Amino acid sequence: MASRAGGRSARVAARAAEAAAPQAPAFIRRQIPTYDLLGEEGLALIETTADQLLSEIGMEIHDDVAVRLFRDAGATVDGERVRFDPGHVRALCSTAPSTFTQHGRDPTHTVEIGGDAVVFAPAYGSPFVRDLEGGRRYGSLVDFENFVKLAWSIPWLHHSGGTVCEPVDVPVNKRHLDMVYAHLRYSAKPFMGSVTVPSRAEDSIELARIAFGADVVERQCVILGNINVNSPLVWDGAMTGALRAYAAANQAPVVVPFILGGAMGPVTLAGDIAQAHAETMVGVALGQLTRQGSPAIYGNFLSSMALRSGAPTFGTPEPAIGSLVVGQLARRVGLPLRCSGSFTTSKVLDGQAMLESAVSMQAAILCGANFILHSAGWLEGGLVMGYEKFIIDADHCGALHTYLRGIDLSADQFAVDGFHEVGPGKHFFGAQHTLRHYETAFYDSWTADNSSFEQWRDGGERRVEERAADKVAELLGSYEPPPIDDAVDEELREFLTTRKASMPDMWY
Amino acid sequence: MASRAGGRSARVAARAAEAAAPQAPAFIRRQIPTYDLLGEEGLALIETTADQLLSEIGMEIHDDVAVRLFRDAGATVDGERVRFDPGHVRALCSTAPSTFTQHGRDPTHTVEIGGDAVVFAPAYGSPFVRDLEGGRRYGSLVDFENFVKLAWSIPWLHHSGGTVCEPVDVPVNKRHLDMVYAHLRYSAKPFMGSVTVPSRAEDSIELARIAFGADVVERQCVILGNINVNSPLVWDGAMTGALRAYAAANQAPVVVPFILGGAMGPVTLAGDIAQAHAETMVGVALGQLTRQGSPAIYGNFLSSMALRSGAPTFGTPEPAIGSLVVGQLARRVGLPLRCSGSFTTSKVLDGQAMLESAVSMQAAILCGANFILHSAGWLEGGLVMGYEKFIIDADHCGALHTYLRGIDLSADQFAVDGFHEVGPGKHFFGAQHTLRHYETAFYDSWTADNSSFEQWRDGGERRVEERAADKVAELLGSYEPPPIDDAVDEELREFLTTRKASMPDMWY
Repeated sequence: MASRAGGRSARVAARAAEAAAPQAPAFIRRQIPTYDLLGEEGLALIETTADQLLSEIGMEIHDDVAVRLFRDAGATVDGERVRFDPGHVRALCSTAPSTFTQHGRDPTHTVEIGGDAVVFAPAYGSPFVRDLEGGRRYGSLVDFENFVKLAWSIPWLHHSGGTVCEPVDVPVNKRHLDMVYAHLRYSAKPFMGSVTVPSRAEDSIELARIAFGADVVERQCVILGNINVNSPLVWDGAMTGALRAYAAANQAPVVVPFILGGAMGPVTLAGDIAQAHAETMVGVALGQLTRQGSPAIYGNFLSSMALRSGAPTFGTPEPAIGSLVVGQLARRVGLPLRCSGSFTTSKVLDGQAMLESAVSMQAAILCGANFILHSAGWLEGGLVMGYEKFIIDADHCGALHTYLRGIDLSADQFAVDGFHEVGPGKHFFGAQHTLRHYETAFYDSWTADNSSFEQWRDGGERRVEERAADKVAELLGSYEPPPIDDAVDEELREFLTTRKASMPDMWY
Repeated sequence: MASRAGGRSARVAARAAEAAAPQAPAFIRRQIPTYDLLGEEGLALIETTADQLLSEIGMEIHDDVAVRLFRDAGATVDGERVRFDPGHVRALCSTAPSTFTQHGRDPTHTVEIGGDAVVFAPAYGSPFVRDLEGGRRYGSLVDFENFVKLAWSIPWLHHSGGTVCEPVDVPVNKRHLDMVYAHLRYSAKPFMGSVTVPSRAEDSIELARIAFGADVVERQCVILGNINVNSPLVWDGAMTGALRAYAAANQAPVVVPFILGGAMGPVTLAGDIAQAHAETMVGVALGQLTRQGSPAIYGNFLSSMALRSGAPTFGTPEPAIGSLVVGQLARRVGLPLRCSGSFTTSKVLDGQAMLESAVSMQAAILCGANFILHSAGWLEGGLVMGYEKFIIDADHCGALHTYLRGIDLSADQFAVDGFHEVGPGKHFFGAQHTLRHYETAFYDSWTADNSSFEQWRDGGERRVEERAADKVAELLGSYEPPPIDDAVDEELREFLTTRKASMPDMWY
């Protein structure tokens, strides 16, 4: 029909359809340099301070197995306090790969993590969700599944993430089973498993074994676990237990200190970065002592503080600058980097939300982050996953696909023939050069309104969150689950049933 | 009273007062590197293409005096078409200073333009204004004066700008007099004059002579004029006339091609940048032929296009990447740079507005722009100056003061004593190190809400634009004009009266 109808309207329709389903790669290869803030001297100063913290103060590690592994490797152990000679932890990290592959259930969505690869993943860990229609409320399993379906449907997100929101309607000790199942059933992009208790990490990996095959999981990374340090300078046993579970299974922990400057670390950036560097390296080292050569991600999460209330702040200039240094440190220690995301403290999708999100996401892009968790959906300091926020953030990820391509300097891009054709004072609309490049010239935003004031007014003066709400409905309405082998699906469901039956419900 | 009242509440009050009137320098000295995208080979390719455009196609210049100046300098002239041998225009630009000083009427607000200096100036040229209460309407002289007063009151803006909005209630041929008077009377920061007709440029400079003294103006830059190229490759006579007026008076033209890729230039970035480079250099060269050694600013204004409508778009990834290259080109030709700003096509201060504004402002910061016009207020592709947008953009400029300082690596910033005091697992809130640095640790935003959800809800669920509207009212309510010598003020007013009486009103 479209081709017979012909003419301008058909072309417009074709373009609109293309715009609705844009094509994107499984992950991005950055073609622009990282933005390196410090020189050798400054970086060495930070590394030396991190070493000083580890040798003079050390870390408290609430995990006998981990303490024993470090003692055997040559650390100085005094009860739960573990101290390291300068350079020791960094040397232990050196056996981790600088780049690894995380396989998707759909191999066309397999991603690289490290080097020049950039992977966008949804926000993680919010107990609440928010949308325009329903307002703010506790997250449910339906919300969780919705966000998995949205991430599957949006080409600019490469990863399904982990706890995209807390499914608060499912018992605390059984949620992880439904969450991992949702990632495996409603998406085929790579994903993250549970970390809150080591046995839940084991369950997550076991589900991955069913979906991918145990032999595959033994050889290849198919699941990540996001492991938080209890900053300052404490490794909690639940976290190191989960970390060791992932590493033992040859899967990748994302090792992340969460440092709110002034609370879990100094109020000054240099100290926070040195502390984070020390804490992260100890976690990565533990993974290597558990299974040498297993993959790991150097994670970082810096935030600042409102001076008058002590409340956490996000999307502020201090962490944005700090991230640039963190990126350099991660590259020097030779590990893939997770950093920043679309952060904000705003309660709603307003100007504050997107200003702060843009500032913090830009930091991730510039610092060379390879795995960008919290790329989409984050509101209210991480307490809320926003439906419309998810869409506008993901749209920004789309724009960043273009940004990370840099600039094409091939001969035809200079349009010298076009200038000869057009000459001074004429416009390029109809030039041959324009027609040749028109379809692919610019990123085509889902959510930006570029119409005239009159068009916008006559269309009801809609704000970006209203357009994003339409996109949520459209994507969920047209969602199709990726195929899955029936036998595999059954085995996954059986695992859920058996594990759930083996435990009483826990609600806290 | 405050010191006697003592204790926490007094400190909180003192902090709140400090936050209300933050201190800022007259301009910023950047302490972070520029983000250089291209290497020598890529930059040389662009420069060669610019030279090729100037030698093969040349520029059309609708100004006999300018054409004669170029002919005398060795250009090839064919009617209004002027062609230049490769390297010729760049050589003509070499007599312009790489850095110059623009004096404010208040010398504490004198700025440097060039090198590592960064100057934020308000948006420019909107026929409409918008605020929450009154909606969108034509700008008036009252609006114009309001924005001058706001820019004077906000420490994060270093410059009063030029046509901050069109005072549409004043005749077209007399507006410039009221605008320049407002900059001189309601502010004492540096400012920009009129450019629309050469005689209006002359009037602007004459008013500056009254305010600063003719001998001072002869020696020092006190006024800028924003001069647009009629891209592609045309210099209009009104613009070159105004440019020559500023240069002849030893004042600085800001030479700016406005290129909407696909319309006034190719749909491909490489061609746009080469074109802009050629066009800008010709303008700067004309200033140098008018008065060798006079100051000038290398301006740039790239924008992209909505593929489905042909409408201009702003805050998109293509111009953000392009700006990085433009910055490198400006530094290679040795000129101060004007680039980007807080651009958006959004009609209102929503998430789209601030996402796009952050992306384009970040490009200005990274590319090393020295004079950032359109830093605050821009909405609707430049058609609207927004009151609340002005505030949140200016707040972002405040945050960028911190960003541009980079990271402090002095010994105390590493907080090693703090780590020894606090130890693993404790928080830093009460640490000596925290108390020592607390007051100055983080940028304190005017408009971001970092309170808890409950506080925010109980406070009326206010959005950032509502908080910004309060700030507008507060700043205009507490505005105090800078002092001016009565005799000077009278002379300025007499000049206005005489000039206005000499012409009939023109309304278009």
